[in-house]
Amino acid sequence: MNAALQYFDDFPVGERRELGSHPVTEEEILRFAREYDPQPFHVDPAAAAASMFGGLIASGWHTCAMTMRVLCDGFLLSAASIGSPGVDVLRWKRPVRPGDTLRVFATVVEARPSASKPDRGILLNDIEVRNQHDEIVLTMQAMTMMYRRLGGAP
Amino acid sequence: MNAALQYFDDFPVGERRELGSHPVTEEEILRFAREYDPQPFHVDPAAAAASMFGGLIASGWHTCAMTMRVLCDGFLLSAASIGSPGVDVLRWKRPVRPGDTLRVFATVVEARPSASKPDRGILLNDIEVRNQHDEIVLTMQAMTMMYRRLGGAP
Repeated sequence: MNAALQYFDDFPVGERRELGSHPVTEEEILRFAREYDPQPFHVDPAAAAASMFGGLIASGWHTCAMTMRVLCDGFLLSAASIGSPGVDVLRWKRPVRPGDTLRVFATVVEARPSASKPDRGILLNDIEVRNQHDEIVLTMQAMTMMYRRLGGAP
Repeated sequence: MNAALQYFDDFPVGERRELGSHPVTEEEILRFAREYDPQPFHVDPAAAAASMFGGLIASGWHTCAMTMRVLCDGFLLSAASIGSPGVDVLRWKRPVRPGDTLRVFATVVEARPSASKPDRGILLNDIEVRNQHDEIVLTMQAMTMMYRRLGGAP
């Protein structure tokens, strides 16, 4: 056990935490989208302006990636996390645009000890991402597998 | 309407398509993870080797991004797609490692015309990603909003 880390048992159900923020730049939107999601409204400012979005917007997967960076810095890198089995009900609620600042909030909604491996459990976090206008741009329910405080952590 | 594009009505329910593949390199795993998911098993080959994963693995969000690139090249860029409201039941089933080749399959499981906007509908695709050993590494159910063939496409 590592005293500097947080474990499964250290996250009370119902606790809502603000984890940090991430500024969104046009350069980063274009760079991500050119590599992974080259749809016109993500890579072509003129085509994006003429689209239903009225301007360049970030790839939804890019918003997930930026959210993950905040989750790492504000949560996972100081926890005994051993990966995630997955995510449910991922919703891109509003466009993310150049100049936006994303703020990430997490609320533990369930803490499920493993039935087969007593050294670990799965935390379910409701993740909410808001922009600088306090509008929700992304929500998801994310699972995180984590060692228990009294378990066999490395 | 653009004769070169595929529309909502062009994707029969039940059709399974192989959309393409993506080779996974250590360089790309490290580059993505250093920016978006700097957990030790994604950015530090030595720490990854000592972890339960036994070596470097790609960020789950990186696997989503690589999958999206194949979805773009094999599906979305030739379709009248206007974005996605979200994804359900995203599961990272197995680690993705340097040297893997990802193959992406999509099956339309539901085609839901919009009740309020008759020019569009939402396709539900079961997405399956397999590695070169034919093992499933990622599954998800992805929504795609798309103009209808007889609708008011731009």
